[in-house]
Amino acid sequence: MPDYAAIKKELEGIAVEDNPALVRQKSRDFFWYSPILKAQLENVTGDLVVSPTSEEEVIHTLRVAYAHGAPVTPRGAGTGNYGQAMPLSGGIILNLAGMDKIKSIQPGKVVCEPGVIIAQLDKQTKAHSGQELRFHPSTAQTATIGGFIAGGSGGVGSITWGGLRDLGNILRLRVVTMEAEPQVLDLTGWDLQKVSHAYGTNGIITEVEMPLAPAYDWVDVLVGYDDFMDAVRFSDALSHMNGLLLKEVAPVAAPIPYDYFTRHKPYLRDRGQSVVVIMIAPHAMDPFAAFVAQQKGEILFRSDMVESMKGIPHAYELAWNHTTLRALKVDPTFTYLQVQYPSPDHVAKVGKLVEIFGDEVPGHLEFIRFDAAIQCAGLPLVRYTSEARLEEIIRIHEDNGCPIFNPHRYTLEEGGMKQTDRTQLAFKQQTDPKGLLNPGKMIAWDNPDFDFNAGKNYLFPGLAAMGV
Amino acid sequence: MPDYAAIKKELEGIAVEDNPALVRQKSRDFFWYSPILKAQLENVTGDLVVSPTSEEEVIHTLRVAYAHGAPVTPRGAGTGNYGQAMPLSGGIILNLAGMDKIKSIQPGKVVCEPGVIIAQLDKQTKAHSGQELRFHPSTAQTATIGGFIAGGSGGVGSITWGGLRDLGNILRLRVVTMEAEPQVLDLTGWDLQKVSHAYGTNGIITEVEMPLAPAYDWVDVLVGYDDFMDAVRFSDALSHMNGLLLKEVAPVAAPIPYDYFTRHKPYLRDRGQSVVVIMIAPHAMDPFAAFVAQQKGEILFRSDMVESMKGIPHAYELAWNHTTLRALKVDPTFTYLQVQYPSPDHVAKVGKLVEIFGDEVPGHLEFIRFDAAIQCAGLPLVRYTSEARLEEIIRIHEDNGCPIFNPHRYTLEEGGMKQTDRTQLAFKQQTDPKGLLNPGKMIAWDNPDFDFNAGKNYLFPGLAAMGV
Repeated sequence: MPDYAAIKKELEGIAVEDNPALVRQKSRDFFWYSPILKAQLENVTGDLVVSPTSEEEVIHTLRVAYAHGAPVTPRGAGTGNYGQAMPLSGGIILNLAGMDKIKSIQPGKVVCEPGVIIAQLDKQTKAHSGQELRFHPSTAQTATIGGFIAGGSGGVGSITWGGLRDLGNILRLRVVTMEAEPQVLDLTGWDLQKVSHAYGTNGIITEVEMPLAPAYDWVDVLVGYDDFMDAVRFSDALSHMNGLLLKEVAPVAAPIPYDYFTRHKPYLRDRGQSVVVIMIAPHAMDPFAAFVAQQKGEILFRSDMVESMKGIPHAYELAWNHTTLRALKVDPTFTYLQVQYPSPDHVAKVGKLVEIFGDEVPGHLEFIRFDAAIQCAGLPLVRYTSEARLEEIIRIHEDNGCPIFNPHRYTLEEGGMKQTDRTQLAFKQQTDPKGLLNPGKMIAWDNPDFDFNAGKNYLFPGLAAMGV
Repeated sequence: MPDYAAIKKELEGIAVEDNPALVRQKSRDFFWYSPILKAQLENVTGDLVVSPTSEEEVIHTLRVAYAHGAPVTPRGAGTGNYGQAMPLSGGIILNLAGMDKIKSIQPGKVVCEPGVIIAQLDKQTKAHSGQELRFHPSTAQTATIGGFIAGGSGGVGSITWGGLRDLGNILRLRVVTMEAEPQVLDLTGWDLQKVSHAYGTNGIITEVEMPLAPAYDWVDVLVGYDDFMDAVRFSDALSHMNGLLLKEVAPVAAPIPYDYFTRHKPYLRDRGQSVVVIMIAPHAMDPFAAFVAQQKGEILFRSDMVESMKGIPHAYELAWNHTTLRALKVDPTFTYLQVQYPSPDHVAKVGKLVEIFGDEVPGHLEFIRFDAAIQCAGLPLVRYTSEARLEEIIRIHEDNGCPIFNPHRYTLEEGGMKQTDRTQLAFKQQTDPKGLLNPGKMIAWDNPDFDFNAGKNYLFPGLAAMGV
């Protein structure tokens, strides 16, 4: 056990919190969306929360932690869903929310610290020069840009720009290593793959450089269909229209919209309506309306036509994991999955799974651009009955050609590609020789021989040791 | 024969030119790229050039022309290649270059008159609010926006935005009809298909509303490969990178770049180098360079690294029909084709045709987005020997699954889809009952029973009557 009293002393001048209730608060994220993670991670907590406000303070914190052998788990706003920012071995929570300076805004790019809240960043870049991030999570109002890069993959805007994994969607990351004398590295190009979506397991991000897109006063639209598959086909056709500038296209199956999109409910006819949640550029509204009419869709809601948006959430707060959140808030027996429906027959794959599961797995898709092709990802809701049935639902998806990015796992590999990321592992060997950064999240580090095909879930020994 | 003296008198107050040499000058475009059109259209000339400066003057001109039964052929800068603006029945050349006012610039859109020169329009919208047109032809420095809409299809920027045919890429066109009392119609949505790319056969455009994209200081890049197919594969892979903001990707086969890109020649090693002409956003240059290195390409030229761009043409002036122009200027025995290589096996199709024709048809591709998928169009050069061989080359392309948009035809149908466009025909019946607008360009008007599959070219009777 590291000597946290000594650590605290050596960190004098940097904000440190050791009140257990407050530390516990900062040790959590939205892991409870998953009944499985909820059971596994409920008692996880750190020992100290350290809140640096500069790169120098980060360097000093890591130097001290390294000397004492204390684990360090970085954290933005804790809006992740997989325990990304939860300290499985206890130790220091490195709260980066205070590092929130915007350093420069230029045509096409912004340089800032990792703790800036995404909506604030967009507000600043828009006011400065009519620009905004290419994409953001549905949690933009609370999430930080650093947390998004370290723990996210894409979101609102991915219909145009793809994901964070795509070369060019992150321009530069500055990271501090976890060594006796921490180094500061600027990563660009292919090197960015070493640390993006690595949950902070191999370096602490202290500065980011992100590309910007033009900001518009995006119009929120809900288009209604009586049949979910009609909504899906419409969404696919819409996403293929080169000339209509979109930011979000998400079909959501009935009865989810009527039952859980409380503020939008007055615009829906009944529980039978499936809805496509859309964000589109204002100058595309005329041709878009012509397209919807041709596709026999019903425009139920347009944010540019309502008297007031007061009390009505943004469209993107009906999408991505906010769809899940809205259902869960009303009915906690829901959980969800993350599905990929590979193109070109993604629509047929969705149809097959809708047919198999019906109302047990109400559909929710997100149309995205993937290697320049339109396809869809999905975050279907699942009426949860048991872990065994959930695993079966996953298996049936995979048997039908639809890989699952499992949101009921806390490791990088099991949630993602189900294989060792050798680039991230090699970089961790170099930047975190003691394995102190966010322990338990990279299986390859703890157990290089883990067999991803054996059908067993990984249990981090450190977590087992915590008796959870 | 209409009474042009009377017409001239009735047009008093509007600029009218009847000097035969000057009228002949304004009766031509770049039809001479094609040896076939050159022979057919060489002697085409109008009777009067009328240059209105307002919609009222357009209306008055059409009213007078209608009363006298005089043909009217609208014209921008005459940068088309298919005789789009050539008056096959003589009559009035309606020169719209003087209608060049920009009326409003807003976020995402611009309203202007048809005669604005495209590069001037982009300059104004960029200065106003960092915006520019989504795409433009390689003739942007001289072509007008109205001429582009009436006679073009896409160009620089189509890798991102598709083509003019795509809903949303034109927002509104205002057209004046050719009736006893001309009407003014504002067309939006699907109605735009009635008049865009109709060569002015069914209405005169007096105002356009176009969507805008963000303007960047695009970097011109030439990437070299020793094998043309390597250049093609690189171009395809590059075009699939969601995160790299491109405006132009055009592989050009050796020895065209070395032999005809005179100002860029010093940057090439030898005649054996094929080149990919690229325009890319400045903030994408770092990741782009990483990508080129991975793809074993050689960056030969970067406009952001040269000491001065003085005397060096824009990259887009090496692409689209400027590639053809540069070759033709040095070696007038060249001509060209316009080929579509449908996805997803477009690269294999290119490879097959390169194998068949070798240096007789040096490759030149333009990567574009087509219904949200990456594919390529081509404007290969052709070492012209005879009309029979040219027809054979066309047939071999079509036999290999690559439709030809024939640039050796002056009619809408034969240059394009080889079928009647019933929308445009129906609109012409309504807006030009006497058939006076740009006669001879719409086969369906003159000969509704023309058989496009009979293998015969259409000869406009009016042109036959002119003895050409």
